[in-house]
Amino acid sequence: MVRSSDAPGSLHSLTRVISSHGANIAYVDIADRADGYSTVHFELDDVMQADNLMEDLRSLGEVRLVEQLPSFFKIFGKRIIVVGGGAQVGQVVIGAVAEADRHNIRGEKISVDTIPLVGEENLSHAVRAVSRLPRAVALVLAGSLMGGEVAEAVYEIRRKGIVVLSLNMPGSVTEAADLVVTDPVQCGVMAVMAVADTARFDINRQRGQRY
Amino acid sequence: MVRSSDAPGSLHSLTRVISSHGANIAYVDIADRADGYSTVHFELDDVMQADNLMEDLRSLGEVRLVEQLPSFFKIFGKRIIVVGGGAQVGQVVIGAVAEADRHNIRGEKISVDTIPLVGEENLSHAVRAVSRLPRAVALVLAGSLMGGEVAEAVYEIRRKGIVVLSLNMPGSVTEAADLVVTDPVQCGVMAVMAVADTARFDINRQRGQRY
Repeated sequence: MVRSSDAPGSLHSLTRVISSHGANIAYVDIADRADGYSTVHFELDDVMQADNLMEDLRSLGEVRLVEQLPSFFKIFGKRIIVVGGGAQVGQVVIGAVAEADRHNIRGEKISVDTIPLVGEENLSHAVRAVSRLPRAVALVLAGSLMGGEVAEAVYEIRRKGIVVLSLNMPGSVTEAADLVVTDPVQCGVMAVMAVADTARFDINRQRGQRY
Repeated sequence: MVRSSDAPGSLHSLTRVISSHGANIAYVDIADRADGYSTVHFELDDVMQADNLMEDLRSLGEVRLVEQLPSFFKIFGKRIIVVGGGAQVGQVVIGAVAEADRHNIRGEKISVDTIPLVGEENLSHAVRAVSRLPRAVALVLAGSLMGGEVAEAVYEIRRKGIVVLSLNMPGSVTEAADLVVTDPVQCGVMAVMAVADTARFDINRQRGQRY
């Protein structure tokens, strides 16, 4: 974690130090922009001497603070995203959170993220964005009518490796999804089972099924 | 969005082009690492000529694709994070998602993210990480016993501007939180009201209250 001045060229200075140490940036984000400073989080591969790297970052004029922290992946783990109408999203999350709890107690880290949304445009943007979200592995479509551009977006993110579950509903997304589940609580549970290393559930054997 | 080779120095090349255009990097993340490539998302302030900037990025040897996409903030908006035990997290989310739905229909963008967790160490890491998560504005502590290091973490993130609500429970977090609400569904609703621009709820007038 590096707190440095929020100005053009600031990230460029940090990455110069990191690449001069031969480290690869596996993850980066910027948060907490205030008072002319922002906080940059790096997750680095192939760091030979972490202490030297941190010391070199500290020596930059624009840097105020450098700290080593646990990675987001270790804390929040894999993300399942639930989008759709508030009534259904709430029920899917009840199932997903209860199931994630059981796996997280055994050492998994699965978090469940939601956004209640309406409208084909909002929904298709949200679906497409899932493949760009850090740590996202599965999507649940929790609505009562979804098709058209949303179904196109589902095909796109499936090609990028995201597992997609859908409630049973009118519209073409049920054709596009990996798996269709009618009961929203069970749908949330199955989404977690599909991504948990601690579960004996093989999405490849369930693909195209409807429950 | 830039798809470029996943190698040391790659981000450094991208930021050189961006800073040469005088643009400030407001947000950045890396996702979708596969086949020797990764996808970097930038949100940039003070871009004078977006087309020229994109063209200069495309001319880099390590870059395969450059596209302009809607920002995560426009799609997923503010984030409320709910942490704790599965039983309570599920009920808080029912309230939060139903209330977020009502505000999102009126033009807000509020998403509700959860992670079911146990243990003081896991919980205090998760609480501290909330202030580092992009777009996070509020935290709900949804458990039945939290104190010690978790309460310390609550004080820290409140100083960084995160609003913290807690269920009523044994342990010192109820002293540390901005607001304590006994009913988990109402607690989720109030968390959304506290951060929605479309709500008439002033957290400053509720600070220290218990319901």
